Amino acid sequence: MNRESSSSHRIPPSGPVCPIPEVDGDRIQLGHGSGGRMSTDLLRDHFLPAFDNPTLRTLGDGSVLRLDTRDIVVSTDSFVVSPLEFPGGDIGRLAVNGTVNDLAMMGADPRFLTAGFILEEGLPIELLHRVLVSMADAARAAGVTVVAGDTKVVDRGKADGMFINTTGLGRLPPGCRPAPQKARPGDRILVSGPLGRHGITILAARKNLELTVDLESDTAALHGLVAGLRREIGAQLRVLRDPTRGGLASTLNEIASASRVGVELDGDALPIPDPVRGACELLGLDPLYVANEGVLVAIVAEGSSGNALDVLRQHPEGREAALVGTVVADHPGFVSLRTALGVSRIVDLLPGDQLPRIC
Amino acid sequence: MNRESSSSHRIPPSGPVCPIPEVDGDRIQLGHGSGGRMSTDLLRDHFLPAFDNPTLRTLGDGSVLRLDTRDIVVSTDSFVVSPLEFPGGDIGRLAVNGTVNDLAMMGADPRFLTAGFILEEGLPIELLHRVLVSMADAARAAGVTVVAGDTKVVDRGKADGMFINTTGLGRLPPGCRPAPQKARPGDRILVSGPLGRHGITILAARKNLELTVDLESDTAALHGLVAGLRREIGAQLRVLRDPTRGGLASTLNEIASASRVGVELDGDALPIPDPVRGACELLGLDPLYVANEGVLVAIVAEGSSGNALDVLRQHPEGREAALVGTVVADHPGFVSLRTALGVSRIVDLLPGDQLPRIC
Repeated sequence: MNRESSSSHRIPPSGPVCPIPEVDGDRIQLGHGSGGRMSTDLLRDHFLPAFDNPTLRTLGDGSVLRLDTRDIVVSTDSFVVSPLEFPGGDIGRLAVNGTVNDLAMMGADPRFLTAGFILEEGLPIELLHRVLVSMADAARAAGVTVVAGDTKVVDRGKADGMFINTTGLGRLPPGCRPAPQKARPGDRILVSGPLGRHGITILAARKNLELTVDLESDTAALHGLVAGLRREIGAQLRVLRDPTRGGLASTLNEIASASRVGVELDGDALPIPDPVRGACELLGLDPLYVANEGVLVAIVAEGSSGNALDVLRQHPEGREAALVGTVVADHPGFVSLRTALGVSRIVDLLPGDQLPRIC
Repeated sequence: MNRESSSSHRIPPSGPVCPIPEVDGDRIQLGHGSGGRMSTDLLRDHFLPAFDNPTLRTLGDGSVLRLDTRDIVVSTDSFVVSPLEFPGGDIGRLAVNGTVNDLAMMGADPRFLTAGFILEEGLPIELLHRVLVSMADAARAAGVTVVAGDTKVVDRGKADGMFINTTGLGRLPPGCRPAPQKARPGDRILVSGPLGRHGITILAARKNLELTVDLESDTAALHGLVAGLRREIGAQLRVLRDPTRGGLASTLNEIASASRVGVELDGDALPIPDPVRGACELLGLDPLYVANEGVLVAIVAEGSSGNALDVLRQHPEGREAALVGTVVADHPGFVSLRTALGVSRIVDLLPGDQLPRIC
């Protein structure tokens, strides 16, 4: 675990020489992943109290669920964010909200989560406990139940504190099926909130960057916004995505490509907070590619954008929702940005990373 | 990534100085986890061809499934085995079979899998490709469809080549509900095959041990055996478990504890292959705690053990099935082993690991 080489021009993904915080107290040992008594004790003392529910208490190889629907939505996501805790959240909260949002973006009601943990030997158990409590809190807030789990431990230096996989199951109500293929020329593009907060917060939390910003991660569950849109505009809701890794630019490029349409963004309408704009200028980043963890992009039929904005703005997470662009028949597969000066530029998919390990 | 310290008395979990094999060709870069063009290319060139199916091809944030049942079984498992490839299998095959088996042990028909990958920067893409092809092959053989996936990349030295999470969904047919709480005095204990092959194979594959054994991992999907047992003996099938981490001893301890019964094992009846016995003697290990990845433990009502053995032996994976013990009312919560000399000893839950990173 040496300090990152500085020969690379990318932003180093993790800063401190020792990524496991120096705290007193017990630490994870390899035996905690053994399936023996140490595993059982860890489960009993930390995992079960956090997530306690009748399904989990059976402790079989899996869980039996009832979803009362034929149409089940499933989504999986692994979280490797560094650092593990940051202003506004932590890897556990991110893992719950991230998978809840993936289900919500399919138009589903999130219901159940599984959680798989890969722990590094030496991880303070106190830190694990904080993350579990935070996950459980996020799960309660989002109305999802953690129904199955698994913990593995790898030797020191073979992971980075903690990785979490969350897999989610949701119920798909009849009628509304937003999909990346469904954008049509004339549709309007909305975002539910300010852009770039998560990515810049993580960057500033990395101790090797001398960057202080007045920001918190936007991590939040967005299924309430989706339920509102579904109810209010139904099938006029064409596409839903959360612009996480790769930011708004990458998400819109994927939609433009999937729907074979062009996208025109209005640079002046994009809600980019001053601290995000300032940090991006300092670091040479483009805020359109910075990750969000509590923002959705909704593409809606032309006549529904007013209603949709009203719905979004009724929710705390959607208070600063904005109309930011239009779907066009021109330049299919491409996203263009009109700037204040009236000129347009193409906002392409980046080849690789601006900011690795952001989620 | 220094050589393991030898001060610990446990068996080092990974051997080579550089765990990423030295091969020519392209390697995973951080950009492959960015959500940008490199991610898209990796998905298109490697993941989609391996797992191709209509659900996965939609490339949304998740997948819509039909299970046509109210009772869904879900199970999650992360795999961190070292080395990534070993005689008889690899981390991908293990990840598919492991989760298929967790579903099968609940009495379910495995149907769908999700797969989450955490890749270390520098992993040879050729090795990733081999693992994906092997996973796809195992999934086809087990009749499960991979319906959602996710890939993250962490910087060099922050993982160990590759970790995989698989989460599985299955259909629970009516009637048969094996559970760890259902063992009753008089019930018979069967194992479906020889013990200890996976654990000892992995150990021998670690290059820092000078150990040559004529063994392959037993990794296999066991849902066919379970379907046979369900059909043949129905509710007489009380408990099903696969003795993976912690081996047969840990699994039986959990069952004894959950059912509040004692377990008596017949030492002479335990099918332990000579190479497993030899390696264990050499290394001071107890084969009862060594992991299996293609063996199940079935606890069945007294009068059904003959039928159950017949069913198991009809399958290639169950050819060497054996009756190895009895559930008793004595010493509830404990497992005892009668040896050839007629004496009994208690086979307790180990506190920690004999063999870390075995799956």
